[in-house]
Amino acid sequence: MSNEPISLAKALASFDALWSPRIVTRVNDYDVRIAKVAGEHVWHVHDDTDEFFLVLDGELHIALREPAGERTVLLPQGAVFTVPRGVEHKPHAPSGAAILMFEPTGTPSVGDRHDDLPDHVDATTGHPLAT
Amino acid sequence: MSNEPISLAKALASFDALWSPRIVTRVNDYDVRIAKVAGEHVWHVHDDTDEFFLVLDGELHIALREPAGERTVLLPQGAVFTVPRGVEHKPHAPSGAAILMFEPTGTPSVGDRHDDLPDHVDATTGHPLAT
Repeated sequence: MSNEPISLAKALASFDALWSPRIVTRVNDYDVRIAKVAGEHVWHVHDDTDEFFLVLDGELHIALREPAGERTVLLPQGAVFTVPRGVEHKPHAPSGAAILMFEPTGTPSVGDRHDDLPDHVDATTGHPLAT
Repeated sequence: MSNEPISLAKALASFDALWSPRIVTRVNDYDVRIAKVAGEHVWHVHDDTDEFFLVLDGELHIALREPAGERTVLLPQGAVFTVPRGVEHKPHAPSGAAILMFEPTGTPSVGDRHDDLPDHVDATTGHPLAT
C-alpha cells in the first residue's frame, strides 16, 4: 500500500469497470474501496459485517429488505449510509455514481448470499488500484 | 444511530468547534467521524490502530515522524491517507479543512500518548452528531 496521499479523482480515473471495487488503502484489517457504478447491482447480504457507503459523485439508491418491509434510501453526492449486517440490499444508480466503501478486508462485493449474478456484476473482494 | 442517509454537508453545518470530531455513523466497531480543523493539532500517536483521513474540503497537512525521519504529507480536497499505527503525527491546516476519519470506536482523538494539549484541542473519543 502507498505511503503517500491518494487523490480519489485520480484513482477513479485509473479504471472504467463498473461494479468492480478498487482498494485504495487499508485501515487495520479493513479496506477503503472505491467503485464506479451504473444501473443495477444484485440483491445480496453480508451476514457478519456492516457496509459503509459514501457517494463521491452522482447519486446512489440502495434498496433494503428490512423486517418492516422493503424500502429504498437515496444518497446524493456527499451522503453516507451504513447498511447493517444481515440486511439484504441492492445498490442501483440509474444515472451512475462513484462511491467509497469501508468494510473488512476479504468482504465479497456480492455478499455471503446473493441472487443470480448478472454478467455486469464483478464478484470480488476488491482489486488493487493500478499504479 | 440513524438508519437514514446523512448529508456530510448538513452534518458539518451542525457544529462549529474545531478539532472536535463528531461521529456520523458506525461500521461494526469502527466510527466514521468528521471534524472541522484549522491551525495546529498536537503531536500524538495511536499505538494500536491505523487512522484514515479523507479531506472533504480545504487542505490538510499531516506531519509524520517515521523511522527515516520527519516529513509532511499534503492532502488536498478529495485525497485520502492512512497514518499507520505507531507513527507519531500532527495534523495541521493553515487555511482550515473539513475531514472524515475511520477508526475503531473509542480511539482517543489525541492518541495514546501526546504532547501537552493546547486549549483549542479537544481530547475526545468523538461526540455524537446533534440531531
